[in-house]
Amino acid sequence: MKGAPANARHPLWRRVATDWQLARLDRPDAEPSEWVAATVPGAVQLDWARARGLPEIGFGQNVRAYDGLEDSHWLYRTRVPEARRARGERLVFACEGVDYACEVRLAGRSVLRHKGLFSGFEVDVSDCPAGTELDILVFPAPKRPGAADDRTQADHVCKPAVSYGWDWHPRLIPLGLWAGAAFVVRPEAHLRHVDFAYALSADFTRADITVTAEATGAAQPTWRLLDADSRPVLESASARATLSHPRLWWTHDHGEPALYTLEVTLAEGDVFRSKVGFKRVRLVMAEDGWALPQGFPTSRSHPPITVELNGRVIFAKGSNWVSADLFPARVTPEVLRPLLRLAKEANFNLLRCWGGAIVNPESFFDQCDELGLLVWQEFPLACNNYPDDPGYLRVLDQESRSIIRRVRQHPCLALWCGGNELFNSWSGMTDQSLALRLLNRNCYDLDPGTPFLPTAPVEGMGHGDYRFRDDKGREVFEIFQRARNTAYSEFGCPGPAPADCLRAFIPESELWPPREGTSWQTHHAFRAWDADVQSHLYVRNQEHYFGPVRDLETLAAQGSWLQAAGYQAIFEEARRQKPHCSMALNWCFNEAWPTAAGNALVHWPARPNAGYLAAQAACRPVLASARISKFQWSEGETFTAEIWLLNDSPAEIPSGEVEVTLSAGVAAERLLQWAYPAVAAGRNLQGPSVQAVLPKAGCGSFELLLRAGPGGSWSSAYRLSLRQDPPPGAACA
Amino acid sequence: MKGAPANARHPLWRRVATDWQLARLDRPDAEPSEWVAATVPGAVQLDWARARGLPEIGFGQNVRAYDGLEDSHWLYRTRVPEARRARGERLVFACEGVDYACEVRLAGRSVLRHKGLFSGFEVDVSDCPAGTELDILVFPAPKRPGAADDRTQADHVCKPAVSYGWDWHPRLIPLGLWAGAAFVVRPEAHLRHVDFAYALSADFTRADITVTAEATGAAQPTWRLLDADSRPVLESASARATLSHPRLWWTHDHGEPALYTLEVTLAEGDVFRSKVGFKRVRLVMAEDGWALPQGFPTSRSHPPITVELNGRVIFAKGSNWVSADLFPARVTPEVLRPLLRLAKEANFNLLRCWGGAIVNPESFFDQCDELGLLVWQEFPLACNNYPDDPGYLRVLDQESRSIIRRVRQHPCLALWCGGNELFNSWSGMTDQSLALRLLNRNCYDLDPGTPFLPTAPVEGMGHGDYRFRDDKGREVFEIFQRARNTAYSEFGCPGPAPADCLRAFIPESELWPPREGTSWQTHHAFRAWDADVQSHLYVRNQEHYFGPVRDLETLAAQGSWLQAAGYQAIFEEARRQKPHCSMALNWCFNEAWPTAAGNALVHWPARPNAGYLAAQAACRPVLASARISKFQWSEGETFTAEIWLLNDSPAEIPSGEVEVTLSAGVAAERLLQWAYPAVAAGRNLQGPSVQAVLPKAGCGSFELLLRAGPGGSWSSAYRLSLRQDPPPGAACA
Repeated sequence: MKGAPANARHPLWRRVATDWQLARLDRPDAEPSEWVAATVPGAVQLDWARARGLPEIGFGQNVRAYDGLEDSHWLYRTRVPEARRARGERLVFACEGVDYACEVRLAGRSVLRHKGLFSGFEVDVSDCPAGTELDILVFPAPKRPGAADDRTQADHVCKPAVSYGWDWHPRLIPLGLWAGAAFVVRPEAHLRHVDFAYALSADFTRADITVTAEATGAAQPTWRLLDADSRPVLESASARATLSHPRLWWTHDHGEPALYTLEVTLAEGDVFRSKVGFKRVRLVMAEDGWALPQGFPTSRSHPPITVELNGRVIFAKGSNWVSADLFPARVTPEVLRPLLRLAKEANFNLLRCWGGAIVNPESFFDQCDELGLLVWQEFPLACNNYPDDPGYLRVLDQESRSIIRRVRQHPCLALWCGGNELFNSWSGMTDQSLALRLLNRNCYDLDPGTPFLPTAPVEGMGHGDYRFRDDKGREVFEIFQRARNTAYSEFGCPGPAPADCLRAFIPESELWPPREGTSWQTHHAFRAWDADVQSHLYVRNQEHYFGPVRDLETLAAQGSWLQAAGYQAIFEEARRQKPHCSMALNWCFNEAWPTAAGNALVHWPARPNAGYLAAQAACRPVLASARISKFQWSEGETFTAEIWLLNDSPAEIPSGEVEVTLSAGVAAERLLQWAYPAVAAGRNLQGPSVQAVLPKAGCGSFELLLRAGPGGSWSSAYRLSLRQDPPPGAACA
Repeated sequence: MKGAPANARHPLWRRVATDWQLARLDRPDAEPSEWVAATVPGAVQLDWARARGLPEIGFGQNVRAYDGLEDSHWLYRTRVPEARRARGERLVFACEGVDYACEVRLAGRSVLRHKGLFSGFEVDVSDCPAGTELDILVFPAPKRPGAADDRTQADHVCKPAVSYGWDWHPRLIPLGLWAGAAFVVRPEAHLRHVDFAYALSADFTRADITVTAEATGAAQPTWRLLDADSRPVLESASARATLSHPRLWWTHDHGEPALYTLEVTLAEGDVFRSKVGFKRVRLVMAEDGWALPQGFPTSRSHPPITVELNGRVIFAKGSNWVSADLFPARVTPEVLRPLLRLAKEANFNLLRCWGGAIVNPESFFDQCDELGLLVWQEFPLACNNYPDDPGYLRVLDQESRSIIRRVRQHPCLALWCGGNELFNSWSGMTDQSLALRLLNRNCYDLDPGTPFLPTAPVEGMGHGDYRFRDDKGREVFEIFQRARNTAYSEFGCPGPAPADCLRAFIPESELWPPREGTSWQTHHAFRAWDADVQSHLYVRNQEHYFGPVRDLETLAAQGSWLQAAGYQAIFEEARRQKPHCSMALNWCFNEAWPTAAGNALVHWPARPNAGYLAAQAACRPVLASARISKFQWSEGETFTAEIWLLNDSPAEIPSGEVEVTLSAGVAAERLLQWAYPAVAAGRNLQGPSVQAVLPKAGCGSFELLLRAGPGGSWSSAYRLSLRQDPPPGAACA
């Protein structure tokens, strides 16, 4: 007998490992002809690839070797283990979710059917002899009949739509036992779902706590709360108790993400432990939110999107989080750790977990709790018209309840959202869609204290652009300076992967020049969205500024420059629009596999790029910032910029100076010394404008440098293109 | 013993009448010093006025004589009657709701407390000796401490806000037993709430019916459905059954409002009867609804507001329904009948029951069922910021569940709406407000097949203007021709009451000229809203067009002209904007008491005005229509108009002709003979424009006449102002 804690939250439960086998079936009732070794949690594709020696999925066009696996039935088999049990202990098979639908058989007899990744099931096998076969028949990937081979095939299921193919994700639909699925020994009387709820007093000095433990057995559980030093601060034998002066959970940029440990004990022997925290998040109207609309006929004011944390309005800075791997089972704590650390180090305080992807495993939320990162959590609906169909609504009800009950325990949870871009033409859902009314209902019933959005964007919020320069030649500089959104919850600036990354997954023969129909396209450099052949590499855009691209290194360097300049411009412009705007989340943070070009800040698996560094600088709590109208300038042209001081921090900035310098090649000119007054906490200050005639430097670029802050820590630099006109010369080093 | 059917739906239950007395108390525990006779249903103010000889409330400034009554405690008293009962029958005191909070005492002992107009309670008094005192202590009108003497006092209760004072409703807060409250004899085993639910097949040829009867007693109820000729068409002993080819319920302008009778029988003796009907209403996107927004950053498309009835898109025409009396108890079937007949005869197909008022009694919905009028039903929230407070939410939950369960039985129900203008600055609620999330939840749980709006307006919809001509001199002609709303769910054109009406409630001494601080102001002719001294009489507007107003008859005649011209312009313009726009509901239909000036189409109690006639003509299913840019023209000026044919009917219009004539004084000129092609069902056709130099007629007005349709039934006439310039002459007859 092997035994290990089954679960960090249930330290007394013991997992009993067993071996798993997997067979691919033509039909659900086919006799398995060949077994391969299976890893659980995992995916049928991973097991099959290992057994059959399929090539590494991330390289070249290998992903296509996995085609077809999604359409088979797959039979998992294990056997009830020998398990030494104390008196009264039970042996159960506990599964936390299946991707996507399955039938469970015990000794060949069907015992249950299940659909859904995010809710689990159990089978008590205490009375089964060791060695009894436990089979899980996984059904083929669900596909709506008649739908094209794209996300619309998933428009009636709670399976993440992204795996049906997206502009940054290949068509690869994982199947199988993706989450925990194992035999567990536990006391007959034990603690199941423990719900930690609280109401903070208006002045945050009191937390009225309710601990509801679903327990089998007669005894009432008792519970206590331990502080960060493991000292008990509260003990109670009843469900309710009050904690005075709770330490509040803050995002890392506004305070400490204070956590406590909740420990629930059942007299009959079981114990449950979990980190908990205290915070209040609301979505409130921006300061000017009620001013519009004016005049008759008058409509409504835009809905609130300004995040208020523990009574303080904060500017939400962050990114869109997507599946960190093609296979959800591979999204382990170890995979998440460097990514989430990068998110925090980017000065981000909020991650939008996008509805096209999975709802992340517990470790994601645990780490966000610890790091002080807020999480905007969407349900698994994205860019589809999910129907008012009772069968779909039944599974959505089950899955959403399970998700809410689990995630609401985490202090990092900022808001619920129905899903991605559901109220846009390409989806076609509306406020009347029953799926969204159901989600609103379930969130209200199970977590009324957390804000709920039916989708993003709602009115006032903006998504896009996803290009540095659009079809009409408008750059993100102009686009965002003209925009007046309450939140920029998606915007992207594409760039190519670093050259050494590209060499690692694009075969040598295809590497130069980038061409359609090669691994470049498989990895999203061409025709990634809306059949725009340029997306996401946009070589033509680079050539518009810099002339013909000669080699891979130049491609990567120029692309990175544009991506970084674009992200810097957008993040800072969104902040300059505070308080009307209160949120900037770029599309997207991470990747599910190596892309050749795209909008992510971090290349798969966890390598930050130039866009990341730009976002990181633009999201510092305090910085000097320049509003610049465009990227490319000409020698002899008069350059102008507005100088600002941006303060998202909870502290007043004392008066000081910003020094503005423009340098091109060897020339450097001090344009301004701005002596600014004290700036209140959470406030921006618009300063003077600077002008300068751009020198004939002949080096292709110039830099505006704003020196400010203690030790220069609020300084900002803007590297822009400087054109010799006519004729364009060679770029200097 | 007196006995009568207690309720049309429960023909076997017998009401036993008793006498009621009422006492006014200084304190809740005071001994009553004086009893007056009380009428139940009624209001404490009505009983008190009768006993004390208070003057008629609608005349002059008499309403102020009722001040202060709202702040007393009121004790109702009756006695348990002698009631002959068959074996097993019970005697209960049944109350359908209380305005607003009460304590019930039996023989001096408190037996329950209740809050709310829209949910009831019962006390079984079968075992009480006849003569036992039953007291109902009604508490003073709820007022939030610290709030001003206006609607904000009601921002934490489910009591209609209108009675706290509105621009067309005096401050008069009714209290007491406003709904049914009587002793009832009924079988011990009896039918309580009966729920009739159905799902129509996509092709409307099948209704899968579920009848859920809450019954005391062991026997299973049986039920049958009778058609309009009382022939049984379906009988069932189980909850579910299917009706083939149900006759659908349509609005009167699109078909027949077909009704069936549901009869539920309990073997032990009780029976329940109710009219039911079959229809499907959805809110769908307008044809062009997905086209916007375009470009990045992109927000969402406006929410759907186009009414689709039984699969057919219809243009919703109608009005806002308000309390038909200051005292809800006086809103009887007899009061409603002429009003609702007028609504139907106005060619309206939808009434918005505004959230500031009561939710109407059953007879309102019964009559709408029969007349083929759709009902947009709001919950009792209006223009306030109703809090996330648990106490308020508890009552709202109770009241809304009761309202939904009752009203959803009516085929006339078109949609639920949280309340009026809650997402505007003067209210301050948002999508995150728990009250609205709770209402969404309850509507989803109890009536998912009916659309739900959190409030009106939502995005795209417009409210206002409420003036013929605004501060900047823009007229409704210009305002609405420039507007691009998806629905005009409120707009008003004010006018004075007819002269003989004014004479009936304004004392002779105050009649002329209208002045602030007199009965004119009490009846809303001055300072009715936003402290605009002109509202709602707008004498200055009349004088802008017509010069000084000399007498009451001229005031009324000119005011009516403007009101009619304005309503004609707005209703027709909204229809010309179809299909982008799909709804036009003016503010408002009726009145709660006589107003001296206002936007209503029907003066209290049931007298249609010139605005009514204009709306009636503008809402005909088919008409010829002219888009005209302004109201006042000058002699010698070139007049222009666009000619249209508007078809909201479900039938194609065959080709035909529109003859356009302009007449002024004795001169008449035929401007156009437009031969139009066939026009598809539900479609408009834009025709040619006409031009004409306006003659020097010297008569102050001219008329554009469009002759069209069988027997001229689609003809329209536009009477406009014609100015002699210079100098203005006397108007001709």
